[in-house]
Amino acid sequence: GLGPGPGDQQTPQVRAALASATDLIGYTTYLARVTTRPGQQVHASDNRVESQRAEFALDLARRGRRVVVVSSGDPGVFAMAAAVAEVAAEEQYADVPVRVLPGVTAASAVAAAFGAPLGHDLALISLSDRLKPWDVIARRITAAVDADLVLAIYNPGSVSRNHQVADLKSLLLDRVAPDRVLLLGRDVGGPTELLTVTTVGEFDPTVVDMRTLIIVGSSLTTVVQRPGGRLVFTPRHYGR
Amino acid sequence: GLGPGPGDQQTPQVRAALASATDLIGYTTYLARVTTRPGQQVHASDNRVESQRAEFALDLARRGRRVVVVSSGDPGVFAMAAAVAEVAAEEQYADVPVRVLPGVTAASAVAAAFGAPLGHDLALISLSDRLKPWDVIARRITAAVDADLVLAIYNPGSVSRNHQVADLKSLLLDRVAPDRVLLLGRDVGGPTELLTVTTVGEFDPTVVDMRTLIIVGSSLTTVVQRPGGRLVFTPRHYGR
Repeated sequence: GLGPGPGDQQTPQVRAALASATDLIGYTTYLARVTTRPGQQVHASDNRVESQRAEFALDLARRGRRVVVVSSGDPGVFAMAAAVAEVAAEEQYADVPVRVLPGVTAASAVAAAFGAPLGHDLALISLSDRLKPWDVIARRITAAVDADLVLAIYNPGSVSRNHQVADLKSLLLDRVAPDRVLLLGRDVGGPTELLTVTTVGEFDPTVVDMRTLIIVGSSLTTVVQRPGGRLVFTPRHYGR
Repeated sequence: GLGPGPGDQQTPQVRAALASATDLIGYTTYLARVTTRPGQQVHASDNRVESQRAEFALDLARRGRRVVVVSSGDPGVFAMAAAVAEVAAEEQYADVPVRVLPGVTAASAVAAAFGAPLGHDLALISLSDRLKPWDVIARRITAAVDADLVLAIYNPGSVSRNHQVADLKSLLLDRVAPDRVLLLGRDVGGPTELLTVTTVGEFDPTVVDMRTLIIVGSSLTTVVQRPGGRLVFTPRHYGR
């Protein structure tokens, strides 16, 4: 897990693994964030072939290479760790050692940039219907909102898949007040950082792209205007 | 956010903030993980006085000190960021700049040690009823399980609060098959690391303490026995 973007949010454990690898495998955009050393083989691929990428990595490792598969953020949250584990579970890869090195996940980095909107119980849900049907996604969002969890929405959309964010807005408007806090974080800590504080009612779904993380507040999530900027938090106390 | 425990899972951003602080504030156990330099003031406190700790930190900062409030894991997830933000929202602290530096949260670190059990949609829920009533907690667990989310359970219990884990087991047994995967992670990456793969039915609530994180799998979470050890994952695909 490379962490969410800025180099100083990447753990030393991950840095050491990258440095000691013979082969680096991953999505082109993520590999571009890695400084390689002479002699390392870099295998860049498209973002949509996770299983093939995992097979390729495990095949190389079985032949004695020291392979690192890179993910952005935390590899265990909507990233490559599950894809590698699924393939590693096959009989022919039984002897290939697999280790997952955690990272700071996008929800943590985006939340930190606003203050503490994840200060209470929350759900992390991927909005992509490439690997699961939309009705499952809708049912999960409904359940989480009805239980008054904060929502962190990963993979909200892309150029080829842009209807879900509008559907998310409709789903939310059916169940929460239009002034419910909604946060958008894009490229947090990077050169094109964009942080938006809005509400479910005012939110414009067309501004969201695949690099945006959406946080939907609970009923208690609060925005405070301070001289130095806005501070957003979800209180630790609930009820009574 | 100090990260989950091992020093090599702490980000350079956090390390730099610790090095440049004049004052370090936090729970005794977490401060013990920080290497201080001469001249730094260390203010250790009990774990249960978060608001007072936040006030103390903001008072010092208002007087011109460079204060770091330490949390384990990610400060934004069931840790000090929300406590500081709540107090910083008060009028008298309006001019005190507050920054949250994210870390690797416990769920990511524990999951990585098992493989990829968080590979699909999930909920993070604190089991502590110190700040919210138990019926809210029970309702949220029920909603998350019924929506087939993976659960990561923080703050499961302590010496003075040990009934909740048994109640969690009962709640789960009412709704899922007894062979549902349940994982326990304690001191992951540390000298007393304990990783347990069990099931909801076989799970012994009395082994859980406040340093344990519990992961309850979804209906699809899979345990594979491999020569090098167990690999646990939740597949990326769902349904159809």
